[in-house]
Amino acid sequence: MKALTAEIIAIGTEILLGDIVNTNAAYLARGLASLGINTYHQEVVGDNPARVLETFERAFERSNLVITSGGLGPTQDDLSKEMGAKYFGVPLIEDFEARKHIEQYMFRLGRQITENNWKQALLPEGSIALYNHNGTAPGFILAKDERILIMLPGPPSELIPMFDEQVLPYLRTLSKDVMVSRTLHICGVGESAVESILAEKMQKMTNPTLAPYAKEGIVDLRITAKAATYERAFDMIQPVEEEIRSIFGKQVFGADADSMESVLVELLTERGWHIATAESCTAGWASGQIVNYPGASKVLEGGFVTYSNEAKMTLLGVNKETLERYGAVSEETAAEMAEGAARALNTETAISITGIAGPGGGTAEKPVGTVCIGVYCNGKIQTQRYHFSRNREANRRLSVIRALDMLRLFILEN
Amino acid sequence: MKALTAEIIAIGTEILLGDIVNTNAAYLARGLASLGINTYHQEVVGDNPARVLETFERAFERSNLVITSGGLGPTQDDLSKEMGAKYFGVPLIEDFEARKHIEQYMFRLGRQITENNWKQALLPEGSIALYNHNGTAPGFILAKDERILIMLPGPPSELIPMFDEQVLPYLRTLSKDVMVSRTLHICGVGESAVESILAEKMQKMTNPTLAPYAKEGIVDLRITAKAATYERAFDMIQPVEEEIRSIFGKQVFGADADSMESVLVELLTERGWHIATAESCTAGWASGQIVNYPGASKVLEGGFVTYSNEAKMTLLGVNKETLERYGAVSEETAAEMAEGAARALNTETAISITGIAGPGGGTAEKPVGTVCIGVYCNGKIQTQRYHFSRNREANRRLSVIRALDMLRLFILEN
Repeated sequence: MKALTAEIIAIGTEILLGDIVNTNAAYLARGLASLGINTYHQEVVGDNPARVLETFERAFERSNLVITSGGLGPTQDDLSKEMGAKYFGVPLIEDFEARKHIEQYMFRLGRQITENNWKQALLPEGSIALYNHNGTAPGFILAKDERILIMLPGPPSELIPMFDEQVLPYLRTLSKDVMVSRTLHICGVGESAVESILAEKMQKMTNPTLAPYAKEGIVDLRITAKAATYERAFDMIQPVEEEIRSIFGKQVFGADADSMESVLVELLTERGWHIATAESCTAGWASGQIVNYPGASKVLEGGFVTYSNEAKMTLLGVNKETLERYGAVSEETAAEMAEGAARALNTETAISITGIAGPGGGTAEKPVGTVCIGVYCNGKIQTQRYHFSRNREANRRLSVIRALDMLRLFILEN
Repeated sequence: MKALTAEIIAIGTEILLGDIVNTNAAYLARGLASLGINTYHQEVVGDNPARVLETFERAFERSNLVITSGGLGPTQDDLSKEMGAKYFGVPLIEDFEARKHIEQYMFRLGRQITENNWKQALLPEGSIALYNHNGTAPGFILAKDERILIMLPGPPSELIPMFDEQVLPYLRTLSKDVMVSRTLHICGVGESAVESILAEKMQKMTNPTLAPYAKEGIVDLRITAKAATYERAFDMIQPVEEEIRSIFGKQVFGADADSMESVLVELLTERGWHIATAESCTAGWASGQIVNYPGASKVLEGGFVTYSNEAKMTLLGVNKETLERYGAVSEETAAEMAEGAARALNTETAISITGIAGPGGGTAEKPVGTVCIGVYCNGKIQTQRYHFSRNREANRRLSVIRALDMLRLFILEN
């Protein structure tokens, strides 16, 4: 088969109405890019058989791999699969395994199977079935006449595992070369700083390549190598990773599936330590984020949301004089909050966040976005004052990521 | 001009690579839907002049209104505007006001103006300039030969205000009729239940129309009326709203921009009451969500994240016997948690959440997804045991929304 050029089509009137953001397209696009498959077009089309068929025809004029999401539901409106079969001129036939899968899935949920559900067990003749472990609609891969159509269900909770576990391995078999990516996560350095440090290097690189991506408070650096074997590709990535780590040091907090919370929780778990939180403006987002990582239950002892000064004094033992002299948003208050949380919950570590997230509450001296963070580790305290210049929500998110990172670095130093 | 059929095109290689989710398309689509303008296609194309031109040609074959986002940047790669002008056969000419705008914007930011920036002041001859108050690239509206091309900058922070303040008013002038929508928010009734209650009614309605949209734990019902004037449209919506409210009663918790947290915070503010939170599995998400609404600082006194049994006892005064006899995930524990939080922070109201979010920790008696919620209001307590059957994150989000809703209803009853 010649080189693959892909096209991603989302099928769903709810996307055309703007009721759903098409996150599937971005997910599929990233997956294709990771394999080195080029994508030049994405489309969205409603649940209209004629327009779906027309979109398939157009897409295959310029691409030889078309991946769709949505339109595989059980209702009469869902005719995308029929159009896929029609485009290739093959009938739909019942897939016995798909029927069994639907039966088992509905049984597990204790739901009645309706006539419509059986329609979902029909697949184009000659296609490879993609069984759905998270819903009823199977997907499929139909490869014929140098063209490949892959149809996946719309809900991300069904599409993502199906793509990762069944589609990616299939696509990998089509390429002689393998692409391997490794993403390093950096906190505490701005995107433009990372870019200017690496600009010259990135320009010169062709294989592996190096590309930065900024998220809230985090910069990801993706190293991608293409080689005949996985082993060879990993070998090509390694020296680049080492060089980046030597440049950014401990600011590289993790790689690939690591998140700030998973790294921090693992660090605490290794040491058998526990953490407590004390939050004002972020009001529970830091503790909530730590718990995103399932292992957190072993290390998160508990936390305090102390929005009022009264709560800061009663629950955390912050001194009235500190609040009066330096204010609730001050490094002094942050220090006492962190220490108070650790004391109250008898933990080895703690973080505290107190700030003005906006939109109101700012002053000339402490404008909106001023956030003071404290970290505590076995009797030692470190504080830092930040100024974030985003909206309320983004300021709160940046505060959380910085607080977790400060504690991570403080633990590594102690 | 005949009826408008719109098409939304995003221009940007970063979307094709999956590095950015195309949220602009959803935003523009919602805006068009609110005006009653049909959209049958969306596309994404890279920063490639030939493909951009081809996409314009194709789009205007089937639609007479094309709205684009992105590709208006200052670099040599950004040639979308040139392709727009080329499609209509008009030259680009410098817009004096746009030049002044760029000058002022860069001056305000204290940045040097480069030669490239002046390129952004060029607009297709005969177009209506859309000045950019949040960036340098102006957009434009080019209406010619019964076709309208509207090009907008890519960053949502620039696109959204430009669309709301300049494009929507323009599009409204093209239609004799106005469309008005009102969305009612319902909690505590499943989507399929709402649909089956309203199915017959919805089928019969043509103007106004009624459509349900499910989010996590919430069902939105959107009523949309088309009429010659806003007043008339509002009058058409009112009886439908009244009927829905009579069916679902207090389960309709708000409308339009209301959120669960804004409604609850307003309810507390009216009464001069305060709230405290006590969270186990949600670990601060409930307090964090309350604070999404800026008015929360007046009513949220504080909260507790009590992940361990130890923390539940020390911070909230939950009895050891209760934990031993009924377990940490029980209505009995939830009741003591809510009461303990209110007592510790001296508040009129409180919520508590304790549950097994997953993936681990489930038992036959208390499977993953079992969540007990308690609400406290001036000495009275109500508890409820739920079973959510989603993943860890969704179970936590559902728990939060249900807890806030339970307190809302409990306050209304008391």
